[in-house]
Amino acid sequence: MNSPLDNLINYISRLPGLGKRSARRMALHLLKNREKLMVPLANSILETAEKIQTCESCGNYDMTSPCNICSNLKRDHSTILVVEDVSDLWAIEKGGIYSGIYHILGGVLSAIDGVSPDKLNIKSLFDRVIAGDVKEVILATNATMEGQTTAHYLSQKLQDLGTKTTRLAQGIPLGGELEYLDEGTLLTALNSRTDI
Amino acid sequence: MNSPLDNLINYISRLPGLGKRSARRMALHLLKNREKLMVPLANSILETAEKIQTCESCGNYDMTSPCNICSNLKRDHSTILVVEDVSDLWAIEKGGIYSGIYHILGGVLSAIDGVSPDKLNIKSLFDRVIAGDVKEVILATNATMEGQTTAHYLSQKLQDLGTKTTRLAQGIPLGGELEYLDEGTLLTALNSRTDI
Repeated sequence: MNSPLDNLINYISRLPGLGKRSARRMALHLLKNREKLMVPLANSILETAEKIQTCESCGNYDMTSPCNICSNLKRDHSTILVVEDVSDLWAIEKGGIYSGIYHILGGVLSAIDGVSPDKLNIKSLFDRVIAGDVKEVILATNATMEGQTTAHYLSQKLQDLGTKTTRLAQGIPLGGELEYLDEGTLLTALNSRTDI
Repeated sequence: MNSPLDNLINYISRLPGLGKRSARRMALHLLKNREKLMVPLANSILETAEKIQTCESCGNYDMTSPCNICSNLKRDHSTILVVEDVSDLWAIEKGGIYSGIYHILGGVLSAIDGVSPDKLNIKSLFDRVIAGDVKEVILATNATMEGQTTAHYLSQKLQDLGTKTTRLAQGIPLGGELEYLDEGTLLTALNSRTDI
């Protein structure tokens, strides 16, 4: 029978980016700070698991469903920005650069990992487009192979539905130095060059 | 008022080696696996906090106090190996190379971090030496500046008590290639060279 500490290390090592060694270090750090960190952390996890809901409309995490963004009437409900994950939504919200609403896919299509369209929140996106007054869908999946494949798949389906579909511009990032950029980025930036 | 999710991310980011970004990723990973990982992890933390004790004798973590090692009569109770942390004990126990008992300091002396001897389990080590039939104390602090300083401090005090005090040999690690070793290690290995 495993000791509670062994079990804890096993659970921690299942978190993304952590191996056994870091898991051991964290378990020891927790034991050294039982009152100030260990118990509060466990209670915080339980409270979050209980109170945070998945928005029935866009897939965002919030205390309410629909989430704060979907239920905000000041936002433009005719524009949906599609992202892979809630962390992408956070990145865009942090910038305060977008006033429409979102749709979170919950991942990307991947033949290797066996992620087919029915495993992502894709049907619900089409349902929203069909049901509502959506004027534009902005595809903002990551610029990875899988992200691009997913965007391509979505754009074809959305165009079949007659929806205006756009995607984020690709090119040189602000502050980017040519010397350090990969060839793919440089090629895209060159091919998509704009008039001054 | 912070949402439970913000609080959770704050707690996670207080774990060693994690920043805000990894904390967010972990919180999202937990929310995606509520039943299989999130709730079991929280319960495991609480169970560990409740059941794992600090050994009153050596400072090890175990379900009982004295710990399994200290209460094992087959082990050599006349030899105490002194380490900084429980993880060091685990490393030595994993090797199965040592049959004595341990003493865990809980850190190292550090002027910069304000760690004075009274903040470590040092007095209890002297108490054990004074009280028991300790024949040898092996100092196995890390070969860092602070670890060496701590070993030096302990060795002086222990010699005042008339106890045989040793420390782990320093030199080239097994499989070590000279080209990749630092000058300090090479110098130590050269100065401590042995007859063939």
